[in-house]
Amino acid sequence: VIETPRAVRWHDGAVRIIDQTLLPGEFREIDLVTVDEIDEAIRSLRVRGAPAIGVAAALGLVASLATHLALPPQHLCTRLAEHAERLRAARPTAVNLGWAIDRLLARAARAARHAPAASRELWEALRDEALAILEEDRAMCRRIGEHGAGLLRPGATVLTHCNAGALATAGIGTALAPIYVALERGVRVRVLVTETRPLLQGARLTAWELGRAGVEVTVITDGMAAAVMRDPGVDLVLVGADRIAASGDVANKIGTYGLAIAARHHGVPFYVAAPSSTLDLSCATGAEIPIEQRLPDEVRSGLGRLTTPADAAVLNPAFDVTPAALIAGIITERGIVRPQDVGLTSAERS
Amino acid sequence: VIETPRAVRWHDGAVRIIDQTLLPGEFREIDLVTVDEIDEAIRSLRVRGAPAIGVAAALGLVASLATHLALPPQHLCTRLAEHAERLRAARPTAVNLGWAIDRLLARAARAARHAPAASRELWEALRDEALAILEEDRAMCRRIGEHGAGLLRPGATVLTHCNAGALATAGIGTALAPIYVALERGVRVRVLVTETRPLLQGARLTAWELGRAGVEVTVITDGMAAAVMRDPGVDLVLVGADRIAASGDVANKIGTYGLAIAARHHGVPFYVAAPSSTLDLSCATGAEIPIEQRLPDEVRSGLGRLTTPADAAVLNPAFDVTPAALIAGIITERGIVRPQDVGLTSAERS
Repeated sequence: VIETPRAVRWHDGAVRIIDQTLLPGEFREIDLVTVDEIDEAIRSLRVRGAPAIGVAAALGLVASLATHLALPPQHLCTRLAEHAERLRAARPTAVNLGWAIDRLLARAARAARHAPAASRELWEALRDEALAILEEDRAMCRRIGEHGAGLLRPGATVLTHCNAGALATAGIGTALAPIYVALERGVRVRVLVTETRPLLQGARLTAWELGRAGVEVTVITDGMAAAVMRDPGVDLVLVGADRIAASGDVANKIGTYGLAIAARHHGVPFYVAAPSSTLDLSCATGAEIPIEQRLPDEVRSGLGRLTTPADAAVLNPAFDVTPAALIAGIITERGIVRPQDVGLTSAERS
Repeated sequence: VIETPRAVRWHDGAVRIIDQTLLPGEFREIDLVTVDEIDEAIRSLRVRGAPAIGVAAALGLVASLATHLALPPQHLCTRLAEHAERLRAARPTAVNLGWAIDRLLARAARAARHAPAASRELWEALRDEALAILEEDRAMCRRIGEHGAGLLRPGATVLTHCNAGALATAGIGTALAPIYVALERGVRVRVLVTETRPLLQGARLTAWELGRAGVEVTVITDGMAAAVMRDPGVDLVLVGADRIAASGDVANKIGTYGLAIAARHHGVPFYVAAPSSTLDLSCATGAEIPIEQRLPDEVRSGLGRLTTPADAAVLNPAFDVTPAALIAGIITERGIVRPQDVGLTSAERS
């Protein structure tokens, strides 16, 4: 079994995360307890990746309530609702965040309906629910890896974007999971990773975690992707997702859409890997997915030095939408489906 | 008439350039005299852009010979040949460099054939040839601007890549020349510029010179280009060229090819602007154009901070090739031609 980093876990009443803003220069884990700490860590991308922020928010709600157990259960529920709305607003695009929060709220509502449970019992039920979300995420990553590994031939060249690896989940990742599972089976592939401006998650995070696992990885700038698809060539593009509409349109890190167009131009299959919690049936198409606009300074001086005239206008959408028509398949924990079928149940698909 | 910076000029026996590695933080002009200084300035991109490095090399050969006028003419010619081969190797892709050097060598050969001229006379003939190259470049930029300005409607959105502006030439630029000429005629367009990793010539240089001239400019990361072509939309892509093959295939800054693919996908016309000195008929197709590979550290830590694991492999081709089939037209000083016609004389075209 391959060693991958644990981006988010439960540790002694706190949410323990790897502070990803410090990688690759420094590996530091930090423990988050208060809702302020958790909110800040999600907003500033100390913990990022759609599945990981869902898990972090769920564990974070539990951690942040632990000092309120002297309150009566109904007051604890009020506090939970306040914290939940606070964290829900931390980042708008990744649907897993709202999904995980809603699971905890539903668990609390269920507990309240049954009996006037003690606050500690209620809290323990929430903790168990959050830990279940974490364990399910780990299991989903593993199954995504198993379904996707079959797409990888020995010696294949895979191109990925941003980080949809262990650092983006509680487990072995989404887009990188097939690569790890293939490696466990003795199938080695070569990975090209786009550095992913503005925040360089590909260069900083994906290159780091793949290198640590012994995968051959080469970093390119975002603008090189089309050129490398032509020469030396790419066999497969594998990316993650922050939200998938019912139509199969996929919101993912800015730059994904351009990669999908270039892949189509070169006849390279373009796959998206994501747990089913990334699916949002309330969005009929990608046009309804809210796109987070981040601060211009991430582009202007995100690398510690002003690289753009201080008065120049800058755009900084964190995500773009890749239409289903450009996607060969979506790898979920249930298998590989055509994007237009992602919103259907397995009965409807057959 | 719009005020644009003078990237390279002749000043009191020296080549005066703007040190572009310092922009946009600092505007500093430096004077180059020795062949070492000129070679270093071209290699380290203090002066860059295919037409500008041709002019800088021509002026540089003249400046570097000025201290050798006590030598007899044939020795001066030997020295010229040595300096010429030194500068020719400074950067491999831009053909204008070799073209300008060859013009000076041919001028020296012509002078030698006629009469055993004095060294000073020979040097003055070379200086006049180099100044003619500079003046021709300025005139070509202006004519490219006049031919291209007709493509720009008031309020149009133009996307450009890297810097093919005044800073890349001795005049008002190539890809940016139509924008400056349009502005002189009262036609304002909005420019989106890709930052152009790894060395950020779009963010650092194009945003600076367009902003200085009063053009509305917005910087995007390279990965945003496809998304902005869909929304808010782009009317025209305008880029420069470092070498154009007889087939009309164009070598230009890495990332250009991906923009051309995305433009085709969105039905956006993709134009290349370049003086005819950029045409290399000795290359039948783009596959024969040598592509400069630059140092990995420009990608790994080009912004002053290590952003990639120190042991990760990195690719750093400075250019890619856009096939003629993706190009709507090439704007030269002679007019706008279809890429497949760029190698033909005007008689052959008609």
